[in-house]
Parts: sequence; structure tokens; C-alpha cells
Amino acid sequence: MLTSLAICMLLNVCVGWGTNEDLIISILGRRNASQRKLIRQCYAETYGEDLLKALDKELSNDFERVVLLLALDPPERDAYLANEATKKWTASNRILVEIACTRSPKDMILAREAYHARFKKSLEEDVAYHTKGDFRKLLVPLVSSYRYSGDDVNLHLAKSEAKILREKITAKEYSCDDIIRILTTRSRAQINATLNQYKNEFGNDVNKDLKEDPKDEFLTLLRAAVKCLVYPEKYFEKVLRLAINKLGTDEGALTRVVATRAEVDMQTIKEIYEKRNSVPLDKAICKDTHGDYEKMLLTLIGHVEE
Amino acid sequence: MLTSLAICMLLNVCVGWGTNEDLIISILGRRNASQRKLIRQCYAETYGEDLLKALDKELSNDFERVVLLLALDPPERDAYLANEATKKWTASNRILVEIACTRSPKDMILAREAYHARFKKSLEEDVAYHTKGDFRKLLVPLVSSYRYSGDDVNLHLAKSEAKILREKITAKEYSCDDIIRILTTRSRAQINATLNQYKNEFGNDVNKDLKEDPKDEFLTLLRAAVKCLVYPEKYFEKVLRLAINKLGTDEGALTRVVATRAEVDMQTIKEIYEKRNSVPLDKAICKDTHGDYEKMLLTLIGHVEE
Repeated sequence: MLTSLAICMLLNVCVGWGTNEDLIISILGRRNASQRKLIRQCYAETYGEDLLKALDKELSNDFERVVLLLALDPPERDAYLANEATKKWTASNRILVEIACTRSPKDMILAREAYHARFKKSLEEDVAYHTKGDFRKLLVPLVSSYRYSGDDVNLHLAKSEAKILREKITAKEYSCDDIIRILTTRSRAQINATLNQYKNEFGNDVNKDLKEDPKDEFLTLLRAAVKCLVYPEKYFEKVLRLAINKLGTDEGALTRVVATRAEVDMQTIKEIYEKRNSVPLDKAICKDTHGDYEKMLLTLIGHVEE
Repeated sequence: MLTSLAICMLLNVCVGWGTNEDLIISILGRRNASQRKLIRQCYAETYGEDLLKALDKELSNDFERVVLLLALDPPERDAYLANEATKKWTASNRILVEIACTRSPKDMILAREAYHARFKKSLEEDVAYHTKGDFRKLLVPLVSSYRYSGDDVNLHLAKSEAKILREKITAKEYSCDDIIRILTTRSRAQINATLNQYKNEFGNDVNKDLKEDPKDEFLTLLRAAVKCLVYPEKYFEKVLRLAINKLGTDEGALTRVVATRAEVDMQTIKEIYEKRNSVPLDKAICKDTHGDYEKMLLTLIGHVEE
């Protein structure tokens, strides 16, 4: 019953694409992967074009972009966002770090598989080709690593590597082999243990010590990697905060975070957001966006209308 | 019928482990993965020890090592060999390059998964930790890459990257970012196209130009990577040739190549071996080995007794 009802709704959406936003919102807002797949098939059959191709066009509005991103499977969405980031890569672009450091190792492999299928190339190939120097040295191993995902921690190693980090940071050798090796290959649990040791031993959070020159784009990227690995929800809260507080709102960042985290850790991100900004995320979004785009974002973050 | 017969034989083998070599040879020689899995379970139940652990011990003879390697699944075997290579790593150790460059991208991911499961770490983590300088710069991306495995080739790119290779090799910048990037991230098909362009344009095989200093271990490793990527069977023929021709035979290399290639490309390797050495591989093995070890190798390479 439910399935045929869903299909009817989907057909309706596809036929009236662009004119039946409320229906799209109510379907995609429910975040059901198989329904999304249907939308995608429907889109291809109705428009003779793949959703991913449609995404590549200049989209007329933010609503369309969030709908298209949501209709993709998570690995395909990550592959798409990562590809977009390599093509538009600048030193201030944090999306590659965000994807490489917040997805689980398994999900990262799935995203790399989806990248092969879609772009007939590997993700690391494009990252290596489009970046240079220290940025390449950090980004290529970040997107290539397949970290161990268990909780096992070697405390002796954590101590010795905390010391290495301290030495290299004190000497301002931020892009040295050791810092890159530790951040790009160790498991999240191991990195967390190392950074705890760092704080115990040397007093500061490592990210505080990596703030020597706040305008240095490489240091900013290193800090983003650390934050994404250890406190992903705090990282996303900050991206949302900056996107919303920006004069004119950064819809690109807002759309990306909501579309990629809705089913993952949005609840925690919302809690951290409210604590940090003294206003609930849904209120902040209401203030900065409007129309169907606003409705879609609110549905996705689980806003309940009163 | 066949299955219960196999199980009976296996039980017999396990109970009489070490005293029933002919049976072991006839079973493992048949190269059936599910039978091998049974041997492994049997071994664990009978000896209270996992085969992988047994491999770590000082093995009393070459026969045992080939049996133990064969009883592992290919991804687990690769993980085991790679781990052994990182622990015993020296500049002349080519095993990491061999594994990273001759396995399919999918198989390499499976080996990395098996590495997690067995060693509670990632392969790239151990490689980065145990290597240094130029060797690390080459080996970490080699074992981390998940290359595109399709046949699509960009000829324009092949031309431009052949030119880059030529410039860097002429300037003797063998460990520069570009050479490493091209060899570690491009697909096999793309690398092959680039090396063809290199030969067309500049007259030599790239490996000939990488022979500036035949004693330079880094150059030797680069050449091994190129050969493994483009002509894996020729690479393995040479490893076998050197192992057999060596004063005293290099059983480690002989065992490894036979155990890992038996089900993959041994037929082609044998043909190349005979052409290059004017003697069939089985004859060469007969001359250099004896007893159960000899029988096992011959069974594995598909020697038919007359």
C-alpha cells in the first residue's frame, strides 16, 4: 500500500517537476533512500537527463540544488561534491578535507567507488592533479587513506606521537612528513588519544598551537582536518554558523551541510548550534532563507511546525 | 559426494599434519578456496592456533611456508605478506611495490580490509611509519591508491604527462611530485598510454631511462613499480629467474611468486620464463628444489607428470 502510494506521489512529482514543491519537500524530507532512487529514475525517464548532469548546470535556485543533492545516494553525493571541489579548488576550499575526515572509512571507500563509476577516474588522481605543494601533500593522503576504524588505542604510541607533533609545531614545520603522516594515516581513536596526550603534556589543544598565523590557508586546512576527525559535529556547527552569520548567507555551505548531515548527526549539530549561538538552528534558518528552500531545510533538520 | 570426500581428506590431513604431505599437496594443489578454508578451520581446531600466527613463527621448512600461505584467502595472504614487508622493510624490499602494483584495485581494497581485521591498523599507517624520505613518498601513495580500473584513456593527457616524465627524468628529479603522482594515481590503462607516448616521442622505454644509476635503490623501486603496473607477468618471470639462478636459490621469492600467482597468471609467466631462459619453469624448479617442497611447487604451477 505504502509503496504504491509513494510511487504515485513520485510520478506526480516527476511529471509536475518544479511546480509541485510541497510534494517534493514532503517526500525528500522523509529521507528514504529507495524513494529517492525512484525520483532519480523518474527524473531520468521524464527529462532524458541524469540528475548528476542536471547538477552540473547553472541551477536556477537553491531549492533545486538541495533537491538534486538529496536525490543522490550518499556515496554518489560525496563523489559529486568532491569532484566539484577538485574542479573549483582553491586554498580556502575545505570540502575535500570535510569529506575525507568526517565520513567513515567504509563510506569513504564507497564514495571512491562511486567516483570511478561516474567520472572514469579516481578521486586521488583528480586531487593530485589539481593541487600543488603542501596542499597536495596533505590532501592526497587524506582522500586516499582507508583508516582502521576500531577503537583500539596504543597509548605508548600516542605519547610518542604527541611529542613529535609538539616538536614539529614548535619548529613551525607544519607541512613536515610526520604531521601529515599522523593526521592522514592513524585511526580516529588513535588520533584522539594522541591529541589528548598533547593537551595533557603541553597544556594547549593542538588546534590552538596551529593558530600561529590565522591567515595561513594551509594552517587553516590542517585545523579543519583535526576538527573534522575529532569533533565533526563542532566542525559542522561552525560551518553553519559562519554560513548563516555571513552578510548575505552562504547558501552553498548551508545546503551542503544540511543535505549531507541530515541523516547522520544533525540532531547533535543542532544541540551544539543552539548552545553556541543562543538561538535554535531552525529559527536561524527561518530568518535567513525563505520559500521552498526554507521549507526544505527545515524539513530536513527535523523542524516540527507548531 | 565430492564435498564429503573432501572433508574426509581434510580431516585426515589435519590429524596427520606434517606426516601426510602427499595428501596436503594433492588437496592444496587443487586450489579450491572452500577446501582451503576448511583446512584453516581444521588447523585452528586441531592445534588451537591460527594459521597466520603459525606463519609468524620460525618455520622449519619451505614446504610448511608454502602450505600456510596457500591456506590463506588471497586478500589475507596479501595483508600478511605486506605486513611482513613493512616489519622487515629495507630499501631493497620490493614486496610492497609488487603487491600494490600487480593486484587489481578491488583486490587491493580487500587486502587493506583484511589488514584492518588482522592487524588492527591500516596498511598505509604501517608503511608510512616504517619508511622514510623518497621511499615513503613513493610507497604510501602506492599502497593507498584505489586506481580507476576501466580502459578509458585520455591521449592528450598521456602526451602531456609523457613530456613531464621526460623533463623530470632528464633533470634526474626521480622522486619529484609529478613522477610520483603519475605512477601512483593514474589507471593502468592511462599509464600504459603515457609510457607508449614516451617511447614514441623520446625513443626509449621509460625504464631504460630510469637506469641512470643501476645501484640506486630508489630507481630500482621505481622501475619495479613501472614493470608491475605495465608488464606484471614479465616482472614475475624476472623474480623467478633471479630466485632460481641465485647461488643457493631464494626460496622466499620462489614460494611467494608461486603461491600468489598460481591461480592468476602462472600460465603466462611460465611461457615467458621458458622463452627467456630456454628451459621450462618446471625443469628449473626440479633442478633447484627437492622433496615435498618441490612436489608442491610443481603441483601449483600445473606440472603434469609424464
